[in-house]
Amino acid sequence: MIDPLTDEHFMKKALMEAQFALDKGEVPVGVVVVAHGQIIARGHNLTETLTDVTAHAEMQAITAAANYIGGKYLKDCTLYVTLEPCSMCAGAMYWSQLGRLVFGASDDKRGYRVHNTPLHPKTKVTFGVCEDETSFILQTFFKQKRT
Amino acid sequence: MIDPLTDEHFMKKALMEAQFALDKGEVPVGVVVVAHGQIIARGHNLTETLTDVTAHAEMQAITAAANYIGGKYLKDCTLYVTLEPCSMCAGAMYWSQLGRLVFGASDDKRGYRVHNTPLHPKTKVTFGVCEDETSFILQTFFKQKRT
Repeated sequence: MIDPLTDEHFMKKALMEAQFALDKGEVPVGVVVVAHGQIIARGHNLTETLTDVTAHAEMQAITAAANYIGGKYLKDCTLYVTLEPCSMCAGAMYWSQLGRLVFGASDDKRGYRVHNTPLHPKTKVTFGVCEDETSFILQTFFKQKRT
Repeated sequence: MIDPLTDEHFMKKALMEAQFALDKGEVPVGVVVVAHGQIIARGHNLTETLTDVTAHAEMQAITAAANYIGGKYLKDCTLYVTLEPCSMCAGAMYWSQLGRLVFGASDDKRGYRVHNTPLHPKTKVTFGVCEDETSFILQTFFKQKRT
């Protein structure tokens, strides 16, 4: 029997969100936020659609998750995102005291680790989940852009 | 004659925004965004009111300024904020390619400079404008909190 609560399961849900972004011509990044085995928030990058640099998938999902919970801290939540967060999103995760961050592809240019932007000390991190698929959708986007 | 277009003039407008935050029991931080000598966006911290860690004054003002301009880049804008931005807000400024950042009080704990979070390479920075007043309103808030 397939365990529905694996990191791979939720990362594939985040990938579905990334696909929605791709369909809109956005850089394809998707997020789900999970609490107690349940998805409580979703988001995908909408910076072009909303003409707003702050509309990263993570930012929207953090706002939506806090709205669902009715409190601003996400201590019991895991945020799954297809691409390594940037400093802005890592900063938001810091303030939210996020319990766990899981990301797929690494971002060696704009990722939070490049600049040592701190997460909250209690945030656990797992990365490289579904790395092939999460990298592939980004490569697809940038290949389309070039042609 | 008083020059209405000085940094002090606009920082006092940001201080008025910080006062609105203080009146609501929020950490008093205020922002105005200026383009070609005109205030095009304002914002004050609303993290408690909106139960949302992303609702820093700067984030709201960046969204509002982009909305006013009709484009997501703020290359010709100056953002005045009463307190040194955190890594999240500095990250948003990076993506917006902000022309100039002016802040009042330094934040030696959570400020972007503590973590070396990069601004955009073209963003010019001025700090310490109206430092006494911008520090005083924060001290007033934290003193109220303790008593």
